[in-house]
Amino acid sequence: MMKADIIVLGGGPGGYLAAERAGAAGKKVVLIEKNALGGTCLNEGCIPSKALLNSAKIFQHAKEGAVFGVLTEDIKLDTEQVINHKNQVVNALVSGVCAMMDANGVHVVSEFGYVEGKTEEGFVVKAGAETYSADTLILASGSVPVIPPIPGLKEGVADGTVWTNREALDATKLPEKLVVIGGGVIGLEMASYYAMSGVNVTIVEMMDKIAGPMEREVSDILLRAYRRKGVKFKLGCKVTGVTPEGVLYEKNGEEKLEEADQILCAIGRRPYTENMGLENLGLEMNRSAVVTDDHLRTNVDGVYAVGDINGKVMLAHTAYREAEVAVNNILGKEDRMDYSTIPSVIYTDPEVAGVGESEESAEKKGMKVRSVSLSMNYSGRYLAEVQQGDGICKLIVNEEDNTVVGVHMIGSYASEIILAAELMITSHKTVPELQKLVFPHPTVGEIIRETLFL
Amino acid sequence: MMKADIIVLGGGPGGYLAAERAGAAGKKVVLIEKNALGGTCLNEGCIPSKALLNSAKIFQHAKEGAVFGVLTEDIKLDTEQVINHKNQVVNALVSGVCAMMDANGVHVVSEFGYVEGKTEEGFVVKAGAETYSADTLILASGSVPVIPPIPGLKEGVADGTVWTNREALDATKLPEKLVVIGGGVIGLEMASYYAMSGVNVTIVEMMDKIAGPMEREVSDILLRAYRRKGVKFKLGCKVTGVTPEGVLYEKNGEEKLEEADQILCAIGRRPYTENMGLENLGLEMNRSAVVTDDHLRTNVDGVYAVGDINGKVMLAHTAYREAEVAVNNILGKEDRMDYSTIPSVIYTDPEVAGVGESEESAEKKGMKVRSVSLSMNYSGRYLAEVQQGDGICKLIVNEEDNTVVGVHMIGSYASEIILAAELMITSHKTVPELQKLVFPHPTVGEIIRETLFL
Repeated sequence: MMKADIIVLGGGPGGYLAAERAGAAGKKVVLIEKNALGGTCLNEGCIPSKALLNSAKIFQHAKEGAVFGVLTEDIKLDTEQVINHKNQVVNALVSGVCAMMDANGVHVVSEFGYVEGKTEEGFVVKAGAETYSADTLILASGSVPVIPPIPGLKEGVADGTVWTNREALDATKLPEKLVVIGGGVIGLEMASYYAMSGVNVTIVEMMDKIAGPMEREVSDILLRAYRRKGVKFKLGCKVTGVTPEGVLYEKNGEEKLEEADQILCAIGRRPYTENMGLENLGLEMNRSAVVTDDHLRTNVDGVYAVGDINGKVMLAHTAYREAEVAVNNILGKEDRMDYSTIPSVIYTDPEVAGVGESEESAEKKGMKVRSVSLSMNYSGRYLAEVQQGDGICKLIVNEEDNTVVGVHMIGSYASEIILAAELMITSHKTVPELQKLVFPHPTVGEIIRETLFL
Repeated sequence: MMKADIIVLGGGPGGYLAAERAGAAGKKVVLIEKNALGGTCLNEGCIPSKALLNSAKIFQHAKEGAVFGVLTEDIKLDTEQVINHKNQVVNALVSGVCAMMDANGVHVVSEFGYVEGKTEEGFVVKAGAETYSADTLILASGSVPVIPPIPGLKEGVADGTVWTNREALDATKLPEKLVVIGGGVIGLEMASYYAMSGVNVTIVEMMDKIAGPMEREVSDILLRAYRRKGVKFKLGCKVTGVTPEGVLYEKNGEEKLEEADQILCAIGRRPYTENMGLENLGLEMNRSAVVTDDHLRTNVDGVYAVGDINGKVMLAHTAYREAEVAVNNILGKEDRMDYSTIPSVIYTDPEVAGVGESEESAEKKGMKVRSVSLSMNYSGRYLAEVQQGDGICKLIVNEEDNTVVGVHMIGSYASEIILAAELMITSHKTVPELQKLVFPHPTVGEIIRETLFL
């Protein structure tokens, strides 16, 4: 049995960052991950989707370039090369993570880890033929796609007529007609890529809006943008079955069929906590999630859980920060996780980003807020670069102390601007104080300044 | 004689914003501007250059799309449409400024304003057939291109063989060989547009580096990027003459000719203060600039000077903020201009942006700083979207209190990310505090986070 200071289970953003930071601090760290390092985010999530969306954006901009004076003939999307380039990017980043593990003395084990329990040696984890022990265990096994018990769905996933995010990011042959089940971030990003690539796409969504908890004013604009791209929506529709012909859904008590030659299941993700021996630890669970406090501690002394496994805010950047908080606490440095200003981004065209309170979340907390929103066409750069854009910037302001508590944007560069919005919120500056900032001109970010003056 | 509360001389960013804010506060405002509202920035500077650079970027991305799987044939830049689209954008924004003036009750006079002096009626300004008076005068006449006394230069400007920014932004016919005199922001942006459009471009620059006061590490990367685009440089070369054949320059005592069929003079800009009667006010001047304090007051009670005319930081966003400070002081509200964290941006491909101290400026102030820089290839999004990019992020950290005092970036989205960097500096948070921020993943902005951990 090999003895370490810390065993990390899972090599995604939460796991590899925890391993790196603990290794850098001189701890003996074993990282156990059966698949490629980088986890879902790097291998079949955030990064590959951005590579695909970037190709689609270049394709789309070239096709629509005439208004900007760019004339093209015979423009084609070479999906083999799109996927090939995506794979190169993923491989480069996975190599980078491997190198980082090496540089910080992390021992990486490419096996599936199974927790046998706690003994005098500490927590014991079996991985392949070897067994490891450590006094500290960081659980970072991530999440898997939710496949609900809809007739035909599981079978479809098995025979390939139904994709999850993994297969959707690897298709070199475009389907003619794609039906996406679920209008959340993953469904929307993939729908955007395929629609821009020329595929006929329909999204079936149970709620009456898309993009989950996103501000309705923003998600309504996104919906219109998708419709302009030719994406069709079946909102308020509950999927009741998957057949070789397509997706069955119910609306107002009536069952209908949306024909498809490919289906993508993007209903959501759930913490992955199965078959890894967690029951041998006596962990407190909340459905499939491991319960953690704001130090990322579980109810079992010495066991931490970071990233999607705790089911709190299932985003890679949350996992990074949670990993740091966990390692700092393990090292005896006080650090706490703050979930109140975690930004969320949808990397479609147009981009969507938000941070802090929405009107709805503020209301639920009993906060007295006012909201103001402004068309992005008040930004000169936006007007120069976007043809007939209907992007907006929306601020949620706390009436009590006149500070900004939420920012929501749809339009170009929103993904990169939202960090500044987050800093405005965390600085607790008042609106008059923020008005005194000099915003670089001409940027799209100036729209925040304009909105601050409403 | 028409009596007003405030006369604003000049309708660029400083002038129109001052007029808007004063009008909104109930003041009777006369804005005098002979040319189109919006000034240099909107009509022949920031905005039109961004429209052109956006067209060039779409063109370039489409041409280089194969690596991302985007195949095109027979791609062309239709310069008539590039300029046509640019004009549409400019016209839309000028109309917006006009509407804003109307909405705030500003009386706009489309004449050249001449200050006759101060009488019992207040400051008296003649504009066309009418005369106006007011107790408060805001000077916002902007700047003009510097045309130094180089043999042949003035004649070249007169006969069109030498462009200034104005003509460079309006050319529907591309020259074969363009020589740009001056490697500052304007020269670089225009060189970028023309080089990406397929023109053979050479930049002649007196200093041994480009981009003026920009961090040398950043400007060196920019220089390499331009060279890859085919732009040639004559650094450390003093222009000695302009002839019908091209540009004469001297290096190491030897005079050479750089052939050109078009020349662009982009040496810099100087405050515009001529022939407008400023001598009738007894203003303190510093060469061609009107001297102001941090309330934007001149030495003459009741006279303010905002924007390029005071020669301090000649950027549109400086003018906006100065206009607010001036109007607040006029309205009796305490407000001061802070020039220490004004961002600067170059909108080429790659983009360059910086804010706060550089290594050099910090050293001059006797600050004890350390600097750290990191390749942008540590950002997953950057790697996914940019082919063989060599962008960096550089932080200047004050050793005394471990706060970030400068951020300099070269790479995609730098223009929109720099606002967040500015907020990091103005929040006076320490490096460990900034490390606790959750940066959205995967964004290029994350490179700041990575650099904070070096």
